Amino acid sequence: MISRPGGMHRTDEVRGQMTDAVNEIHKTRNSVPELDAIIGEKFPVLNDGFVRLIDYLGDDSSIVQAARVSYGKGAKKRSQDEELIRYLMRHRHTSPFEMCELKLHVRVPMDTWRQWIRHRTASVNEYSTRYSIAIDAAVKTEPDHWRLQDYVNRQGSAGFLDSETGKTMSDRESEIQAACRKVYENRIEAGVAREQARKDLPLSTYTEAYWKIDLHNLLHFLHLRMKLNAQYEIREYANTIGYKIVSKWVPITWQAFLDYEMNSLMLSKYEIEMVSLLTSGQVEAVIDRMKKDDFLKLKDGKLVPNLEAMEFESKLEILKIPVPWR
Amino acid sequence: MISRPGGMHRTDEVRGQMTDAVNEIHKTRNSVPELDAIIGEKFPVLNDGFVRLIDYLGDDSSIVQAARVSYGKGAKKRSQDEELIRYLMRHRHTSPFEMCELKLHVRVPMDTWRQWIRHRTASVNEYSTRYSIAIDAAVKTEPDHWRLQDYVNRQGSAGFLDSETGKTMSDRESEIQAACRKVYENRIEAGVAREQARKDLPLSTYTEAYWKIDLHNLLHFLHLRMKLNAQYEIREYANTIGYKIVSKWVPITWQAFLDYEMNSLMLSKYEIEMVSLLTSGQVEAVIDRMKKDDFLKLKDGKLVPNLEAMEFESKLEILKIPVPWR
Amino acid sequence: MISRPGGMHRTDEVRGQMTDAVNEIHKTRNSVPELDAIIGEKFPVLNDGFVRLIDYLGDDSSIVQAARVSYGKGAKKRSQDEELIRYLMRHRHTSPFEMCELKLHVRVPMDTWRQWIRHRTASVNEYSTRYSIAIDAAVKTEPDHWRLQDYVNRQGSAGFLDSETGKTMSDRESEIQAACRKVYENRIEAGVAREQARKDLPLSTYTEAYWKIDLHNLLHFLHLRMKLNAQYEIREYANTIGYKIVSKWVPITWQAFLDYEMNSLMLSKYEIEMVSLLTSGQVEAVIDRMKKDDFLKLKDGKLVPNLEAMEFESKLEILKIPVPWR
Amino acid sequence: MISRPGGMHRTDEVRGQMTDAVNEIHKTRNSVPELDAIIGEKFPVLNDGFVRLIDYLGDDSSIVQAARVSYGKGAKKRSQDEELIRYLMRHRHTSPFEMCELKLHVRVPMDTWRQWIRHRTASVNEYSTRYSIAIDAAVKTEPDHWRLQDYVNRQGSAGFLDSETGKTMSDRESEIQAACRKVYENRIEAGVAREQARKDLPLSTYTEAYWKIDLHNLLHFLHLRMKLNAQYEIREYANTIGYKIVSKWVPITWQAFLDYEMNSLMLSKYEIEMVSLLTSGQVEAVIDRMKKDDFLKLKDGKLVPNLEAMEFESKLEILKIPVPWR
Repeated sequence: MISRPGGMHRTDEVRGQMTDAVNEIHKTRNSVPELDAIIGEKFPVLNDGFVRLIDYLGDDSSIVQAARVSYGKGAKKRSQDEELIRYLMRHRHTSPFEMCELKLHVRVPMDTWRQWIRHRTASVNEYSTRYSIAIDAAVKTEPDHWRLQDYVNRQGSAGFLDSETGKTMSDRESEIQAACRKVYENRIEAGVAREQARKDLPLSTYTEAYWKIDLHNLLHFLHLRMKLNAQYEIREYANTIGYKIVSKWVPITWQAFLDYEMNSLMLSKYEIEMVSLLTSGQVEAVIDRMKKDDFLKLKDGKLVPNLEAMEFESKLEILKIPVPWR
Repeated sequence: MISRPGGMHRTDEVRGQMTDAVNEIHKTRNSVPELDAIIGEKFPVLNDGFVRLIDYLGDDSSIVQAARVSYGKGAKKRSQDEELIRYLMRHRHTSPFEMCELKLHVRVPMDTWRQWIRHRTASVNEYSTRYSIAIDAAVKTEPDHWRLQDYVNRQGSAGFLDSETGKTMSDRESEIQAACRKVYENRIEAGVAREQARKDLPLSTYTEAYWKIDLHNLLHFLHLRMKLNAQYEIREYANTIGYKIVSKWVPITWQAFLDYEMNSLMLSKYEIEMVSLLTSGQVEAVIDRMKKDDFLKLKDGKLVPNLEAMEFESKLEILKIPVPWR
Repeated sequence: MISRPGGMHRTDEVRGQMTDAVNEIHKTRNSVPELDAIIGEKFPVLNDGFVRLIDYLGDDSSIVQAARVSYGKGAKKRSQDEELIRYLMRHRHTSPFEMCELKLHVRVPMDTWRQWIRHRTASVNEYSTRYSIAIDAAVKTEPDHWRLQDYVNRQGSAGFLDSETGKTMSDRESEIQAACRKVYENRIEAGVAREQARKDLPLSTYTEAYWKIDLHNLLHFLHLRMKLNAQYEIREYANTIGYKIVSKWVPITWQAFLDYEMNSLMLSKYEIEMVSLLTSGQVEAVIDRMKKDDFLKLKDGKLVPNLEAMEFESKLEILKIPVPWR
Repeated sequence: MISRPGGMHRTDEVRGQMTDAVNEIHKTRNSVPELDAIIGEKFPVLNDGFVRLIDYLGDDSSIVQAARVSYGKGAKKRSQDEELIRYLMRHRHTSPFEMCELKLHVRVPMDTWRQWIRHRTASVNEYSTRYSIAIDAAVKTEPDHWRLQDYVNRQGSAGFLDSETGKTMSDRESEIQAACRKVYENRIEAGVAREQARKDLPLSTYTEAYWKIDLHNLLHFLHLRMKLNAQYEIREYANTIGYKIVSKWVPITWQAFLDYEMNSLMLSKYEIEMVSLLTSGQVEAVIDRMKKDDFLKLKDGKLVPNLEAMEFESKLEILKIPVPWR
């Protein structure tokens, strides 16, 4: 990102150390009554999963406290706290957000857990199917919830299977899950070691875990997993964590995250140039340039954008700037 | 960021595993002749520091190789490799960039090293002043290189001391450095343990280290430390690493990094709304809204922007959109 | 661990910086001919998995080089290199081992991958079953390879199912795997999104990934996963990586790892006291103390050790010290 | 380490998920009254440093809770909790200890901070001398606290300078620190940017920081920094954190750490063989073997141990086994 000049504070007083005023507030742990009220509560996700708050460390004021050490002391009014947190988020000064920590108990299908666990910055204790019998529950799909493969966006899905075919699919899902469970239980009864008996359980089987992560890394997780191109299942968990828990825990940070991360727009060097041409009325120059650079191709008398140009189109729409090649 | 629909590949062939074609290319290590040519060369930085390439793992093609496993197989032409790398950078698909690794030998003032080492994702072996005599070199400042404190941006600097005062400063710098060294050497001669004798060496003393980091984390380091608001000294190191080494090692990635990270522009949710109002001609609505939200304040008959609005001003200038309150 | 006095080097020469002699050797990348010879080769594991070397960075001499910066310069003979590496391993000076990096291509059952991926310090690009069709292969179990649950050690397995029952188990395994695959393929054919179609694939399904990790963290992985109480499947992968690849790559480090990590013995504070009593002939004192501390309990006229005392028994056997309560 | 068979639990009941009994206890945050009582208190270290508890997450019972998910459910009595924590520590099952988190405010000389910050697994917000005036305090050394260089152990120190020479050293220390501060203040007065003015401050200058780390990584830090070969200054901080704070926070874990980590003894494969020969009376075999392997060398008619053999000597002394070559 291009860095603009301009600092955070105008006042400029000399000081030799972290002030006692700052120090004296720390005689007890920070706590958040709105969050204390939901400790232990299960927020349901999917057909049989959940997210449950176990414990937390810090709050919005902990972020302010840490930032004032690292970036200099500012004033103490609540409005200024908010301004500071928003400044940190906007400029990606991430370390103060690491000063908060969240600990959850989650119940998640193994298939979703395979994506979840790729976030390496959390601490994890997962339910062991070497020691214990595997949880007897799996993700079920309603007949009208079978998503169609998106052939434009190879990763995603688009639309749903018709209900009748969906009904057949859901029936077969129940059958195969029951069959897999039966195989598993037969093995256990025959004395096969749990660690081996589990090998043919379906990926849809639920697992549980304690998951502990700091706020900076949690927001990174939420950013990736709340996005529309994240898979539906993990998106459900991310939205639950975000809107049911984080929004209560650190409301100022949560709002700043929505404003500056989730709902922001990035323009590349090239896009900046194109926008500045468009806003100064040089529409033809944009088309010529984008044709020259293979962003637009003439096909059957029409200008066809390539992938990056299609992304640019979406951005222009958001900015309410007319797309010149339409 | 708002995620736009649209996937990476249009073709869609079924396959059951990583193809042999992909596999067969790996009979030798990837190497980059342009980089091999500078192994061991010292690139000077500051008055007595340097950056030196020791070893590396992977190249642009390693990123492509990893991405094709994670995001599906694409075609194999060089132009498509470039398209893929640029796609990954644009969409912050970071894991393929972790597949490359760089190892440097650096000589850096301890003061700068204190900032450098805050990047926790690298492997480090620093020269030990417990085992060995401290390096007898310190950063010297030329008379016209004493930077003035920036009182708007409390973190930064702005302009320079006049040469005459600068000359006095530089002389005193030499004296205090010599005095500190003398104290150090006296202690060593008296038999004081090195680990204790070093305690009053100035922060300007040089240290050396091996520093090894993967490309994703290196680019994050460079992004933060090449920015104009990074301190001059570490910026010199970051620019040397970027322009002298990374640009030769992974030229496609480097260009994508400049286009999509270093020189991109982020618009917040609020700024998106303001821009879309401006591009549809609703200038008064913008001013009213920003006054209402305290982004603009009327002072002595003039509209004065707050800090965030000043940042917005800079963005409007870049986009060549007239600032409505001027 | 109790730290004994005694340093690494006796000679003591003053120096002011990393010597040019050290520096001059770095005009080319370090390479290991024995390892270059096996780049791209697949080492088979289980019925259809493999481990394949893709690339590496550094060798035994890179560790020595880094250690000499951090711990002071020593002599240059090969025998002294070996002494230094063994010293580092013995005293857990781990940072020099981070200076080496290994990159593998692996094919692993998802069930095993779930354990593998818990090691968070590696870089990973896994084959995507959102973008691509799932690999059509699963772990098969031979009729005489069905392991029995170990009811003493709840985590492990002990002995095997009889061949006849095993035959039935293996037949059912084939059936359920075929049934799951059929469900998967039906879904794909009906147009269900890959990301959803895969949800009932069995955990035994193979996946593939690039996996890159530094030597320190690799040895930690191998230590945990080569141990006898690690699950058989991942142990097979760990042994293949260790004995087929690491042993050729960094032979001195590998031997030190076997001597000081894999085959070492840890005595707790309590065990140290008991051993020192035993070696000075105070057998009765040991029994009295261990009874008092509930390590031994009198049951039906016999002394029964608790879990920790049973572990101590095993250690005494290894040290060829008679177990006093037998 | 050699892994001995033997599991943690004998009982073996089937269960399908984390029990409600376990779940119901979590309606409030875990808290530790002994620790709450010292929140905000400054524990002094060195002449002007301190360690201060800000906040924490979890306690001994959080470790038990996490372990029971990962390693199977056990009974619930306090004695069994203790047994479980000690088992985890002994067998280095580290992940449950990551479920606890400690947050401190520390005041440390920059020289010590340079070592401290090498532990990369913590979250840090350090006092900024770019934004703020450097803290006006430095480590002072009493005349009889100047440590002599240890010429056997190149890293360490041994004994003290005589008081008279020490007095001279302490006087010069005061002078050079005052001179450095004066240079710094002159620069600030002349308008030099803080980020540049600080460059010749001595390493003895104090800094402050918030430091947050999980219990597993904290114990690793303490293990390395409480050891006798750690530098005196950082050892003082480590001991303060350990004995004043951690011991109150997680008393069971702390005791297990002392018994199994700090005061344990590691025998290498070779040392195991030598000990087992010695305890079965084969003293000559040991001497022959160690001569053959160059652990012992005949010099002037005496057997001289090499470095590793000297370490072995210390271990034999601890185990009260006579050293055969003396």
